[in-house]
Amino acid sequence: VSVHAEPLLTPYLLVDLDVVERNLRRMQAYCNAHGIRLRPHVKTHKLPQLARRQVELGAVGITCQKLTEAEAMASAGLTDILISYNVLGEVRLRRLASLRRRARITAVADSVPVVEGLAWAAALSPAAGPLPVLVEVDAVGYGRTGVGTPAEAVALAREIAARPTLRFAGLMAYPHRPEARAWIREAVSLLTAHGLPPEVVSSGGTPAAWTAHETPEVNEYRVGTYVYNDRMMMDRGAATLADCALRVVSTVVAVHGAGRVVVDAGSKALSSDLLRPGWVEGGYGLIEEYPGARIHALSEEHGHCDFRDAGRLPVVGEIVHIVPNHVCAAVNLYDRVALARGGRIEEVVPIPARGCSQ
Amino acid sequence: VSVHAEPLLTPYLLVDLDVVERNLRRMQAYCNAHGIRLRPHVKTHKLPQLARRQVELGAVGITCQKLTEAEAMASAGLTDILISYNVLGEVRLRRLASLRRRARITAVADSVPVVEGLAWAAALSPAAGPLPVLVEVDAVGYGRTGVGTPAEAVALAREIAARPTLRFAGLMAYPHRPEARAWIREAVSLLTAHGLPPEVVSSGGTPAAWTAHETPEVNEYRVGTYVYNDRMMMDRGAATLADCALRVVSTVVAVHGAGRVVVDAGSKALSSDLLRPGWVEGGYGLIEEYPGARIHALSEEHGHCDFRDAGRLPVVGEIVHIVPNHVCAAVNLYDRVALARGGRIEEVVPIPARGCSQ
Repeated sequence: VSVHAEPLLTPYLLVDLDVVERNLRRMQAYCNAHGIRLRPHVKTHKLPQLARRQVELGAVGITCQKLTEAEAMASAGLTDILISYNVLGEVRLRRLASLRRRARITAVADSVPVVEGLAWAAALSPAAGPLPVLVEVDAVGYGRTGVGTPAEAVALAREIAARPTLRFAGLMAYPHRPEARAWIREAVSLLTAHGLPPEVVSSGGTPAAWTAHETPEVNEYRVGTYVYNDRMMMDRGAATLADCALRVVSTVVAVHGAGRVVVDAGSKALSSDLLRPGWVEGGYGLIEEYPGARIHALSEEHGHCDFRDAGRLPVVGEIVHIVPNHVCAAVNLYDRVALARGGRIEEVVPIPARGCSQ
Repeated sequence: VSVHAEPLLTPYLLVDLDVVERNLRRMQAYCNAHGIRLRPHVKTHKLPQLARRQVELGAVGITCQKLTEAEAMASAGLTDILISYNVLGEVRLRRLASLRRRARITAVADSVPVVEGLAWAAALSPAAGPLPVLVEVDAVGYGRTGVGTPAEAVALAREIAARPTLRFAGLMAYPHRPEARAWIREAVSLLTAHGLPPEVVSSGGTPAAWTAHETPEVNEYRVGTYVYNDRMMMDRGAATLADCALRVVSTVVAVHGAGRVVVDAGSKALSSDLLRPGWVEGGYGLIEEYPGARIHALSEEHGHCDFRDAGRLPVVGEIVHIVPNHVCAAVNLYDRVALARGGRIEEVVPIPARGCSQ
């Protein structure tokens, strides 16, 4: 992509829509081939344009992590939204009820207090019918949210089913791993035995997406990062550089002795996310033009690079393209993104769901 | 601060203006006592209101890291701005020239290509007079930007002085350390011997701010973090909890077995910054109500907490107040901030320079 002549100031986000389109089509084809409903997570791109494209290509709807993200997507015309996060607090629950007037919402819960709040919100929006709720499960011992045993999943499903304003709709697991199949199967069978067969068994995560079909109980899948991919996905073997659709475009601002180079992309441009927590040695991003260079430290506005193994030194003012470690975190730092097709920037658009962490 | 009854959705930023005012006054009093001109860095708060307050209290002007930050501040009426970062690229230099029509700008440089660009930009804005330029120096071997020896500082000062559209105005060092005095003294004496006595010797950084007077050559000081402080400043012994003016207000979204608690502040609410690079053991923030709890990992929207040493468990839906590790990075994630005085939220204001990383 030719960017030297265009008026954007670095650091900025540059997305190759041709790569995006290929990533979207490949995942949709995989899901189609295995009878899995694709419900992409918008937390990565935060762009209505791409959410609509995902639906055009066959997605059954979208996933949003937070209510405010869902509100932004509903305002842009998306109508079938899973909010994959416990919705809590009176103000937020009232807004959830309002949102049901403009979009088909599915909620999740992993505890009784969350179920109680959802039941209250659903009572405020009776015209939308009972609110479908998935029980969030921790089938792989990830240790974040989600109930820990199939028996707990059944108990919470019964809490949901017992409330007239709610409808038990199934299970939501994260992250997907083939080893979790026994857990999922047991939960499905227990639920069925209790008269609560799950309509939806949703799993998610880009790294293991291509193994979703190995768990036949899974009939819906959530993926976010696959749209752009990043250095983390490359590190996990889930993407190649050619699958990475986004770059942080940056300017070299200093070249000093001993391979010491500074670029204008720091933690406020790339995020401080490492390939794995604490693994500073893995660096903060990949400079496409200089794969041997290492971004070994970040200040807020400076990327500290070691070019000793890069073969050659850049010059001050040179433009470089950086594949960030974690594209979701990087995107969330920018109000706008440049969209390119056929090697040319077509438009620079706002990212309406940026910062929608509420 | 009572926040349970107000309509902001967590996670959000809450600033105690009483603490801010104390922090601002203390630093201004220190600088006044030692005849040091204070030029606060707005990269932390990114708020015109606070920049104006800093100037009202006696600051000589402000520091901005990036051009776009300076543009935002100039639009809000700030008129004396040091841009403490190499300004590069034709489009950016043209905007720098435009900005000189509305504010007194001082620039910095640590290489000849940067000086050349500044000279070109200054020629586009002749009415503003010669552009004052500081030579950025790395007096402490920090290894980021800045020339490495006093002789190089002189050479670059002569490059600046040789250009009619520029004016050599002095030196800018970062980070401040008392051990750098010999370096600074030598540079000042060499410059003076060459007929280029530095008008400004600017040093900066919150952790060592109270030692600025130990380097009598330093006559201007730049500080950003001191306005809010954070867990990093506490870790460095540069602030106490009582000096921390900002909290990320968060909701407990899950409480599971073995002290496993999840809050709704993840890396998109706190940033992934650790107390020191790679030191995951130090955690991702301090939960004020539960100082024994540890935020041991972050997902994008989840703070993974270990409450085994917290004495008691919170309940789902409970509100907690988190002191972030790095307040500058946290602030940059939010479009708005709630400002409180006397324990009550007075207003919720936009953060105009958020995301101004260009």
